[in-house]
Amino acid sequence: MSKRRTGNFFEDFTLGETLRHAVPRTLHGGDLSLYIAATGDRRPLNSSTPYATSLGFRREVVHELLGFHVVFGKSVSDISLNAVANLGYADLRFLEPVYPGDTLSSTSEIIGLRETSSGKNGVVYVKTRGLNQRDQEVLSFNRWVLVNKRDPSAKTGIDEVPDLPKKIAAADLPVPSQLNLDRVHDLRWATGGDDYWEDYKVGEVVHHSGGMTLEESDHMQLTRLVQNTAKVHFNQHTQASSRFGKRLIYGGHIISVAHALAFDGLENVLCMAGWNGGSHANPTFAGDTIYASSEILATEALPSPHDGLGALRIRMVAYKNADPGQEQIALRGPHGKYDPSVVLDLDYWALIPKSSE
Amino acid sequence: MSKRRTGNFFEDFTLGETLRHAVPRTLHGGDLSLYIAATGDRRPLNSSTPYATSLGFRREVVHELLGFHVVFGKSVSDISLNAVANLGYADLRFLEPVYPGDTLSSTSEIIGLRETSSGKNGVVYVKTRGLNQRDQEVLSFNRWVLVNKRDPSAKTGIDEVPDLPKKIAAADLPVPSQLNLDRVHDLRWATGGDDYWEDYKVGEVVHHSGGMTLEESDHMQLTRLVQNTAKVHFNQHTQASSRFGKRLIYGGHIISVAHALAFDGLENVLCMAGWNGGSHANPTFAGDTIYASSEILATEALPSPHDGLGALRIRMVAYKNADPGQEQIALRGPHGKYDPSVVLDLDYWALIPKSSE
Amino acid sequence: MSKRRTGNFFEDFTLGETLRHAVPRTLHGGDLSLYIAATGDRRPLNSSTPYATSLGFRREVVHELLGFHVVFGKSVSDISLNAVANLGYADLRFLEPVYPGDTLSSTSEIIGLRETSSGKNGVVYVKTRGLNQRDQEVLSFNRWVLVNKRDPSAKTGIDEVPDLPKKIAAADLPVPSQLNLDRVHDLRWATGGDDYWEDYKVGEVVHHSGGMTLEESDHMQLTRLVQNTAKVHFNQHTQASSRFGKRLIYGGHIISVAHALAFDGLENVLCMAGWNGGSHANPTFAGDTIYASSEILATEALPSPHDGLGALRIRMVAYKNADPGQEQIALRGPHGKYDPSVVLDLDYWALIPKSSE
Repeated sequence: MSKRRTGNFFEDFTLGETLRHAVPRTLHGGDLSLYIAATGDRRPLNSSTPYATSLGFRREVVHELLGFHVVFGKSVSDISLNAVANLGYADLRFLEPVYPGDTLSSTSEIIGLRETSSGKNGVVYVKTRGLNQRDQEVLSFNRWVLVNKRDPSAKTGIDEVPDLPKKIAAADLPVPSQLNLDRVHDLRWATGGDDYWEDYKVGEVVHHSGGMTLEESDHMQLTRLVQNTAKVHFNQHTQASSRFGKRLIYGGHIISVAHALAFDGLENVLCMAGWNGGSHANPTFAGDTIYASSEILATEALPSPHDGLGALRIRMVAYKNADPGQEQIALRGPHGKYDPSVVLDLDYWALIPKSSE
Repeated sequence: MSKRRTGNFFEDFTLGETLRHAVPRTLHGGDLSLYIAATGDRRPLNSSTPYATSLGFRREVVHELLGFHVVFGKSVSDISLNAVANLGYADLRFLEPVYPGDTLSSTSEIIGLRETSSGKNGVVYVKTRGLNQRDQEVLSFNRWVLVNKRDPSAKTGIDEVPDLPKKIAAADLPVPSQLNLDRVHDLRWATGGDDYWEDYKVGEVVHHSGGMTLEESDHMQLTRLVQNTAKVHFNQHTQASSRFGKRLIYGGHIISVAHALAFDGLENVLCMAGWNGGSHANPTFAGDTIYASSEILATEALPSPHDGLGALRIRMVAYKNADPGQEQIALRGPHGKYDPSVVLDLDYWALIPKSSE
Repeated sequence: MSKRRTGNFFEDFTLGETLRHAVPRTLHGGDLSLYIAATGDRRPLNSSTPYATSLGFRREVVHELLGFHVVFGKSVSDISLNAVANLGYADLRFLEPVYPGDTLSSTSEIIGLRETSSGKNGVVYVKTRGLNQRDQEVLSFNRWVLVNKRDPSAKTGIDEVPDLPKKIAAADLPVPSQLNLDRVHDLRWATGGDDYWEDYKVGEVVHHSGGMTLEESDHMQLTRLVQNTAKVHFNQHTQASSRFGKRLIYGGHIISVAHALAFDGLENVLCMAGWNGGSHANPTFAGDTIYASSEILATEALPSPHDGLGALRIRMVAYKNADPGQEQIALRGPHGKYDPSVVLDLDYWALIPKSSE
């Protein structure tokens, strides 16, 4: 009996079951450094002890996107090793800060199964939870992936689609309990930015000024770091005969690079609180240069005791080989299809202090 | 008098002398992270504090292959800077766990010298030992390398070949004294695997399902990380006029990548205890995709007090640009020469718990 | 009002003002590892706890060049985002050791402004200081950069050139207060080198024996690690239409790679104390192979209480695709222009123990 692991197919999933994913991962200070080296991220909450402690945190925090990648990465072997496409996300929440020394593990509950009309594959809906070593839920999200069937000829007829929220209400956003803005009057010393919650207006678009060209080593290193095993990112020998002829870059890498570019113009944002939804609009490959823009979709005050804090609902769009600050790019073409330059469309909530003036 | 360091030639070595190699190296949590980023390794003993402590270890352990690379890397300046080829290994033992914060240094004893019949070069046999900051021996191995002579015309006639063991007896395998399986009944929560010592049969071959394409940055970063100075890995300017026209990937990088791929199907293996022997069958270059298979050569119980533990003797073979799970590959051709796709042939002992049922 | 950050132009600077740069950066043990992985550096003060403590330091020290890159990197967004060229350095001093756990921030004082004769741009002279979390100055340096004008047609006529020292007197060199050579008689166990201060002679040139080929990932990772945002290093999409058609490697990366190569032959050097001056003679690109040589310009004893210590004034020159140990290379051509193979010309002071014999 072969021990070659071939992953789960559509028929292998049962509605309601929960899979506990392998390999708990302890994060180090060095993981923070590697994340910065991979993305160029400069958000001070994740790179500066004095800034983090000034806000009430024990020390600098593991970037929530690094936490996401680790939790996501563990789910790949069980959920998406035979995935054709990662279709979307909904209702992602960052619930607890993760510190160096913490250990993350993850579970996925099968919350929906829908066979496609062709019968060749099906959509698997999961709710994935990241847990720390104290079994606290540090983040959770829903995603749905298109997974091949073991036997395309045997129809299952299953059609269980979960009801997923289109957005998280501002009042429901998780706010880190550690956060203490009482002693903070000015973040400029650390962030370099002068703009606070009141300075952002609905409809405003920030075209971030940087661009980052991606190399094979860069994306593979980050993807290995988070122990994501999806073969399409690593194996040129098989990808050569794929539709694209090359390795696909892990979509999470693009989220991280876009987020790092988006520091310029959003300097005083503290962290992401959650995602309303998101999709990887087009694939990216080594050699592509990533740009990003952020559109303010909503600005909401937060309920007491978070009076000093506001939320910005932001649509972060990433582009390849086209700078939205230099050229006009329509997100979608005439038939509703994403422009080929658009690679990410992410709708998220950011936390940002109000001006103390 | 020039201070340009040109390394030792065959005539510079004296039978019986011991060289203390330079630059003790303190390892950090970040080195564990970099190792994972370079190889994709997922073995939980090296990436998870809770798993490591559940087995009796103080915290997660530096991967024994990273320890090997560090100890090996130090020996290069003194032993193999003028090496033509790294011919083989025998009787490698992993004696003590290495933790973040430990400092490794290394020594090599010249245990054999044999001039080749042409007189142009000679084989140097060394026993290299890795020591921690408490002067405990953490690992040791024998290797032999073909080294150029300073003066090819002056014959030395030296022919001292050491008697090296072909294998380590299972009863002699080093078992970490910290290891405590008493409280452990199921590793699946951490490893994702259900197979224990009794589930592996002699003759069984696991063709691991992943493949990893190598980039210049990837192998150079790991090789620099362990402060290995062998020029063939780094200098394209001189390698352009070499036999291969390109940089050679450090053979140890291939061992690590193959080992990381071999997690699938060997999830409950705790660690390598030692190597019986090994050779780098063919060179690898950037752009090559590595695959691996593991053949069970022997299964041996371990003597008391290690009743809960078994040993698997495994032949791990790494291939380039050919997936042994998809195509039939004969290891050696008609004249006993390795197939050009075979790049590593390693015979090692792994420790794995017995099933508690 | 757009929040796209476009950086400062020549007219935006005011003589005498001090800019506090954003994003304090806490360094980890993992940053030491990443520095070694990027450069291959082997100097034991930065990679070995036992060696560092034997010399009086608390533990291994963050490489002073990594500290420099971090401090420099922070200044880019404010000073050199619109820079045409980084013209030179003067009077750099490494004042305090930086340890893992320390947080670096930086400020720049505008000490000179000179419009060029064309009026299209101007030279900005800054004195940049790196501070730790206790507000101790850990390093400082002067540099001058050519910066574009916002309005090339409006002449400013400003011509304020600071008087910068051509060299640091040996008696003024900062010596780490922690350094204690009393118990140290021989560094060979850690460094592998037998040469001390007395063994180096004015005029002696060491052609270091290694060579390092640079990849896009390698230089971008180190440059991102230190949160340097200069676009020319990262954006192939825009660089394709630049004069060179490709990404420029951060000049500091070359200093670090050359320094790492220069370990061979200067093994017992403890650290850099300061730079007299330096310039990036020609640009480097991915694919270039870097070589280095060191010429001893002066040897000076240090005043009491540093009797056991000497200083070497060293001219470290880096070359691309030409090995100065194999071919004769004139640094400058007939018209005083650097040879195209010369990429760095750095004049610095190194500290090295005297022989205890």
